[in-house]
Amino acid sequence: MAAVNQVYIAIIGAGGVGKCFLSQLQALAARRPSPKLSLCYISTSRKALYNVDYSPVSLDGVTESLAASTQAPPPLPQVIDYLASAPAKVILVDNTSSQDVADAYPLALSRGLSIVTPNKKAFSGSYKLWQDIFTASATSGAKIYHESSVGAGLPVISTLKDLVDTGDKVTKIEGVFSGTMSFLFNSFAPTEGQGGKWSEEVKKAKALGYTEPDPRDDLNGLDVARKLTILARLAGLPVESPTSFPVQSLIPKELEACSSGDEFLDKLPAFDQQMEDTKAAAEKAGKVVRFVGSIDVATQQVKVGLEQFDRSHPIASLKGSDNIISFYTERYGSNPLIIQGAGAGGDVTAMGVTGDLIKVLSQIA
Amino acid sequence: MAAVNQVYIAIIGAGGVGKCFLSQLQALAARRPSPKLSLCYISTSRKALYNVDYSPVSLDGVTESLAASTQAPPPLPQVIDYLASAPAKVILVDNTSSQDVADAYPLALSRGLSIVTPNKKAFSGSYKLWQDIFTASATSGAKIYHESSVGAGLPVISTLKDLVDTGDKVTKIEGVFSGTMSFLFNSFAPTEGQGGKWSEEVKKAKALGYTEPDPRDDLNGLDVARKLTILARLAGLPVESPTSFPVQSLIPKELEACSSGDEFLDKLPAFDQQMEDTKAAAEKAGKVVRFVGSIDVATQQVKVGLEQFDRSHPIASLKGSDNIISFYTERYGSNPLIIQGAGAGGDVTAMGVTGDLIKVLSQIA
Repeated sequence: MAAVNQVYIAIIGAGGVGKCFLSQLQALAARRPSPKLSLCYISTSRKALYNVDYSPVSLDGVTESLAASTQAPPPLPQVIDYLASAPAKVILVDNTSSQDVADAYPLALSRGLSIVTPNKKAFSGSYKLWQDIFTASATSGAKIYHESSVGAGLPVISTLKDLVDTGDKVTKIEGVFSGTMSFLFNSFAPTEGQGGKWSEEVKKAKALGYTEPDPRDDLNGLDVARKLTILARLAGLPVESPTSFPVQSLIPKELEACSSGDEFLDKLPAFDQQMEDTKAAAEKAGKVVRFVGSIDVATQQVKVGLEQFDRSHPIASLKGSDNIISFYTERYGSNPLIIQGAGAGGDVTAMGVTGDLIKVLSQIA
Repeated sequence: MAAVNQVYIAIIGAGGVGKCFLSQLQALAARRPSPKLSLCYISTSRKALYNVDYSPVSLDGVTESLAASTQAPPPLPQVIDYLASAPAKVILVDNTSSQDVADAYPLALSRGLSIVTPNKKAFSGSYKLWQDIFTASATSGAKIYHESSVGAGLPVISTLKDLVDTGDKVTKIEGVFSGTMSFLFNSFAPTEGQGGKWSEEVKKAKALGYTEPDPRDDLNGLDVARKLTILARLAGLPVESPTSFPVQSLIPKELEACSSGDEFLDKLPAFDQQMEDTKAAAEKAGKVVRFVGSIDVATQQVKVGLEQFDRSHPIASLKGSDNIISFYTERYGSNPLIIQGAGAGGDVTAMGVTGDLIKVLSQIA
């Protein structure tokens, strides 16, 4: 039987963020003797590692053990059954970006499993899924935290929740929510000096690993739209889906049908003039162009796309691939509460997940 | 007998922050039916309101009831005895800036009372008091939160704790930690245009209510030194006291002995040239002067005083009386995690306290 002071950790996903999380979890388990954190399940899309008698899977060399495993992951309802019958409380860590796993959250929560995750899909899909998730959590008392679903480890979700929970009225949220878009525009339209050609900057960003394998997955604006959906819902707007408000895509119509990211990159230079014109129009007004998202709570308007900013505006003078998020509220008045810093990367994303795990531990252990 | 799902709130202090907190607490109690929040004690330095049988004090019109009370506050050990014997869990809210109340935290925590407070004195006094507080909390399990002790409601303490708790290494913390100093230097040495005379800006700040009744209590740098002491300790440095590292005072030596703030303000113009020279020296280097605090974790150096910044630096381009705090860490690399916004004011300070209260509730109720 498990000791009283033990919490089981179950992990789905062992990719970039997952590997960083595992290393943070190992360090955490070593630093904090109580409650004892025991890994009782870990899986990728193809392999799994667990013991039917709930004896812990060793965290030492777990990546290698998982790679060597011959067990396939059971169907999700079966995994949830297994976890819900564990002889101690369970925290499920979803380090995937899978819609299937997200769809199983209401079931997992209703069975008493707490969840921490950077997976945006659960909170930016249909509004019904959002409602099902939080209803299940409220009913069963199981916790759900998702700091890293917006701005990676930056304290964006927790800050917005604190504002709302303490009774402040959020009037507007505005910012740069994509590390990729931040890097692209800070290079393409810098506040000082000339930027490079648009297609060149996109290629450079891909080479540096700042874009998805197919850069169109960043340029279509959907990633930013998902993050805006999450924040708008937390601010009280019942946004139906990330496609229910205006989202500007930076993919030229003619290139939407390209069969690969490479074909897209090959053909992109022919469309450089469009972006050059956009940049020139901003410059004429003494400004620079940036790809931003904004939520106007009073008018219920959410939008994502290009906007012009004064060179001295915090959004214009952002560095590298940093995110910046400004919360305008009644209490904070004309000057917003601003959070800024790296909003992507395995370590800082995993940090948000580990921070959430610690918060859940403080409540259930 | 109290119902199981009830938590008692005890409040010491009903000044500026205290009044804002009371209004937030009323709204919170109305919004959240469970756990039921019952006020079981409230006091100022002269008056108190409580019932020996623990029947709740009504939150409606509590300020007026307290003013009309004929009870004097009992000695603190007696208050702690009363609270520790309550038939439900108790959260003690210290909305004073009293060293006496702070000194009683170890006793209160050891008796099982959780504490939320903006009171800097508890965490920036002697290192022994700091150790006694956190030892008592760890031993009894009672919680202690103090978000508003630095940067009012800005998520400064929680962010630093998350960084440390998840295993990041904080290398440097730097920023503007005083709303008063922020306002003074943003007006005296703006990034664009000419600022006013130093003594005029100090008078203006006092007239706007941005300074303590005696402006020397802001200009001596001790308020900033206290905040730096708290952050340094959270980052792992055993700082002995807020006077154990270099703190630059902006009070001319000749005016330290003035018998009143008014006398100080009358005589300050004679010393304007000193500050004018400081400003000119920065301008010669193409920079502006700001009053900042910094903690270098590796070299264990903490300091508070005037420094020069490029006009494009986030610290230089701060607005109004905003604070800005930059965390440099291993995970965040060369671009720091930055928190910015109003760092003073009754409502935002009380918000930090209310946020802490909600966190404690989620853990003990």
